[in-house]
Amino acid sequence: MAAPGQWEMEKGIPLSRPAHLLRDVPLPAAVVFESPLTHNLAWMQRFADEHGAKLAPHGKTTMAPALFKRQIEAGAWGITLATAVQTVTAHAHGIERVLMANQLVGHPNMTLVADAIEAGMEFYCVVDGVDNVRDLGVFFAERNLTLNVLIELGVDGGRCGCRTAEQVETLVAAVAEQPALALVGIEGYEGMIAGGNEVAAVRAYGERLVETVRTLQDSGVLQREAPIVTASGSKWFDLIAETFDRAELREHYTPVLRPGCYVVHDHKLYAGAMEAIKARDPDLEGELRPALEVFAYVQSLPEPGLAIIALGKRDIGHEPDLPLPLRRYPRGAEGSEWVDVSSWRTTHIMDQHAFLEIPENADIAVGDVMAFGTSHPCLTFDKWRRVLCVDESLKVTDVMTTYF
Amino acid sequence: MAAPGQWEMEKGIPLSRPAHLLRDVPLPAAVVFESPLTHNLAWMQRFADEHGAKLAPHGKTTMAPALFKRQIEAGAWGITLATAVQTVTAHAHGIERVLMANQLVGHPNMTLVADAIEAGMEFYCVVDGVDNVRDLGVFFAERNLTLNVLIELGVDGGRCGCRTAEQVETLVAAVAEQPALALVGIEGYEGMIAGGNEVAAVRAYGERLVETVRTLQDSGVLQREAPIVTASGSKWFDLIAETFDRAELREHYTPVLRPGCYVVHDHKLYAGAMEAIKARDPDLEGELRPALEVFAYVQSLPEPGLAIIALGKRDIGHEPDLPLPLRRYPRGAEGSEWVDVSSWRTTHIMDQHAFLEIPENADIAVGDVMAFGTSHPCLTFDKWRRVLCVDESLKVTDVMTTYF
Repeated sequence: MAAPGQWEMEKGIPLSRPAHLLRDVPLPAAVVFESPLTHNLAWMQRFADEHGAKLAPHGKTTMAPALFKRQIEAGAWGITLATAVQTVTAHAHGIERVLMANQLVGHPNMTLVADAIEAGMEFYCVVDGVDNVRDLGVFFAERNLTLNVLIELGVDGGRCGCRTAEQVETLVAAVAEQPALALVGIEGYEGMIAGGNEVAAVRAYGERLVETVRTLQDSGVLQREAPIVTASGSKWFDLIAETFDRAELREHYTPVLRPGCYVVHDHKLYAGAMEAIKARDPDLEGELRPALEVFAYVQSLPEPGLAIIALGKRDIGHEPDLPLPLRRYPRGAEGSEWVDVSSWRTTHIMDQHAFLEIPENADIAVGDVMAFGTSHPCLTFDKWRRVLCVDESLKVTDVMTTYF
Repeated sequence: MAAPGQWEMEKGIPLSRPAHLLRDVPLPAAVVFESPLTHNLAWMQRFADEHGAKLAPHGKTTMAPALFKRQIEAGAWGITLATAVQTVTAHAHGIERVLMANQLVGHPNMTLVADAIEAGMEFYCVVDGVDNVRDLGVFFAERNLTLNVLIELGVDGGRCGCRTAEQVETLVAAVAEQPALALVGIEGYEGMIAGGNEVAAVRAYGERLVETVRTLQDSGVLQREAPIVTASGSKWFDLIAETFDRAELREHYTPVLRPGCYVVHDHKLYAGAMEAIKARDPDLEGELRPALEVFAYVQSLPEPGLAIIALGKRDIGHEPDLPLPLRRYPRGAEGSEWVDVSSWRTTHIMDQHAFLEIPENADIAVGDVMAFGTSHPCLTFDKWRRVLCVDESLKVTDVMTTYF
C-alpha cells in the first residue's frame, strides 16, 4: 500500500475503501477482475504441473509484486524477468529466485544483481557472446560471487541467442575459462519464430533446446545436478510443454516454462492463441480467461457516429490491436446495468483520446463509462502505477502497485 | 526528490551524486540535456512574448513538476493539462493556474478539480456539449463554486469541439442557464487539421477562433474582462501566434498559446516542424533544440548486420518513428569518445528490445552504449518515473520525478 499522498498524486485513486469503480474512481483506470485472475493463476500452475515442468511466470508483464507473490503462492518455482532493475525490484519484494531471460550487460546493472545475490537471491541469466561472458566473469570474480548462466539458443533472423552448435561450443569454452560463472543450462524463446509452419518450427526448436542441454550434460560441462532447460512465451506454451514433457527431463533436468500474459490473459491476441491451443488439444480442461480491462468516460459526441473517449495511448496498449470496446455503463450506473458494445470499433488513438465508431443512433451519452479490453496485456500494465482489483460488482477489492 | 528506497525500486537510479550517466546509471535511462532545455524554455517564452500572447505550456508532455516550475519561472502564464488527475497533480506541486484543454467528465474527476479550486487553484476547462454543461452546472452549484469554462471549437472529422456556429449558440444558452459556470472564452486545437492546404486551414481555424470570441464578447455573454482565446500544439504554433497577434487581442483579450513538446523538442517529427516554421519566417531568431535522449546498452550481436539493444517500447516512444540511433559510446567510455551512428537504423522494437540494422563490419561491441533520439517526446516521458538531467559531459546534474 502506498502512502496517501502518493495515491492522490499518481492516478487519483481514492483512499476510502471499499470504493466502487464507477462511483468513486476518477477514470480512466486499469482494473483486474479477481475471479478470472484467481482462475488463471491456478490454471497455468496446474498445466505446468501436469507436464512435469516448473513455472517461472514472466513478471515483466505486470511488474506487480502483489501478483508475483500470488504466482509463487500458487506454486511457481520462481519469477522470470527481463532486466536487472526488474530483478532487484522483485527481490526487494520478497522474490527469492529470479530467472532473467536476458543478457546481463553494463557494470551498473551487474552491481545491482551482485548486491541482490549477496543478499541471498538465487539468480540465473543468459549468455550468448564471449565478450559478455568475459565481462561477467571478471566482474563477478572481483565480487567473489558465482553467477549462474544459461546459454541462450536463438533462431536465424530472431533476437538474441546462439544460432549454431559451433557458437554454443565456443561459448561453453569461454564460460569454462571464468571460474566465477556456473553454466547450469539452456534457454530459448520460441516467440521469435514467424512464418511458414510455425507449429512445426516451435516443436523443432523445443527439441533443439532439449538436445542441446542433453549434449552439454553428457559432456560434463553443466554445473547443476538437474540442469535447466527453459523456454515459452504465452502463445505456444503448450508446444514447449509437450516437448519438455518426458520422463528423462522430469527425472534428471529442471524444465521451466515462462509464460507471462496468462495471468490476466487478453481479449484478442492471446484469446486467439488460446483457441489454437484448444484446437491442438481438444481434451484440454478449461482455459484462460481475460481479467484486465480499462474503464474510461465518454468525453464528447461531436458528430453522428463518432464518440471521443477519455482514454489514450498513455492509458491502454494499442498494439497489435486498438482497444476493444466491451461494455457501456450508462451515466450513474453502478455496475449491473450495462450494454454489450463489442460491435463498436476503436478507429484511432492519441495520447489522451480514443476515437470510437458507433452507430449513428447509438444510445450513448457524455459521462457514460466504457470498459475496454486489450490485445497483449504487457503494454497496458506499464501505463499504470496502481492497478485496481475489482469483484464482479465493480467494488474495488485491492489496489496493486506496479514498478516500471 | 524521492526517498532512497523508491530510487532503487523504480528504475535503479543511483543515489550518490554527482553520478555519471555511463559509469553509474543502470541503463536504459532517459536523459534531458540541460543546455538545450534551458535554451528552449527561454526561446518559446520570448516567441510568445513577441507575439503578445501568454504561454501555457502543455504539461502532459512531461508531467514533470520540476519542468512546470521552470516554465513558470521563465514567464509562463499557467500550465495546460489534459486530465483532472494531471491537473490536481500540478496544483499539488505549486502550479496555481491550470488550463485543462479537455472536457471535465465524471463526478470523481469533478471532485478532484473542485477540491483544488476550493484550495485556491485558478482553473479553466472546455465544454462542447449541453449534457456535460448541465452536469458541471449542477455539480459545481452543489459545491458552491464557480467553474470557468471555454467553449471548444472543433473541425469536421476532428476530435472534440463544436463544429458549427449554431452549436456554439446552443452551448452559450446552456451555459447561461448554469449560474455556477462562467463562460470566459474560446478554445481550439489546430493539431487535428490534416490534408489539403494545411497551413491555410490552420490560419483559417485561428481566424475562426478569433471571430468567435469577438462575436461572443460583443454579445455580452463572456464573464471575463479580457476573454481567453487559446489554441496551438507544437507543430503550428507560429501560425496560431500570428493569427492571434493583433493590437485588439493584445489590449482586450487574453490570447494563450499551448505548445508542450517544445521544452525538449525532438529529433524528427518536431525537428521537421521547426524547419517548416523557419521556412515560413526566414527572419526567425534561433530555433528549438532537441534535449531528450534515451541511453541503452548493446545487448547482443547475434548475426552480422544486426545489433540487439536493451531498449524497448517500455523505455522509449516508437511512433511515428522508431528510435533514432545518434551516437555510440565504446564500452568503458566516459562521455567524450563517441561515434556518430545516425546512419544506422532501428528496424523493429519489442517490449524490452530494439533491433538495429548496422553495417556488417560495424565497430560495435556488447556493452557499448547507444544514445537514441525520439520522434514525438510525449510517449517517451511517460515511460519513466525519473528522468535524469545531464550536462554535456554526461554528469547527472538533477533527477526529475514524473507523475503519470
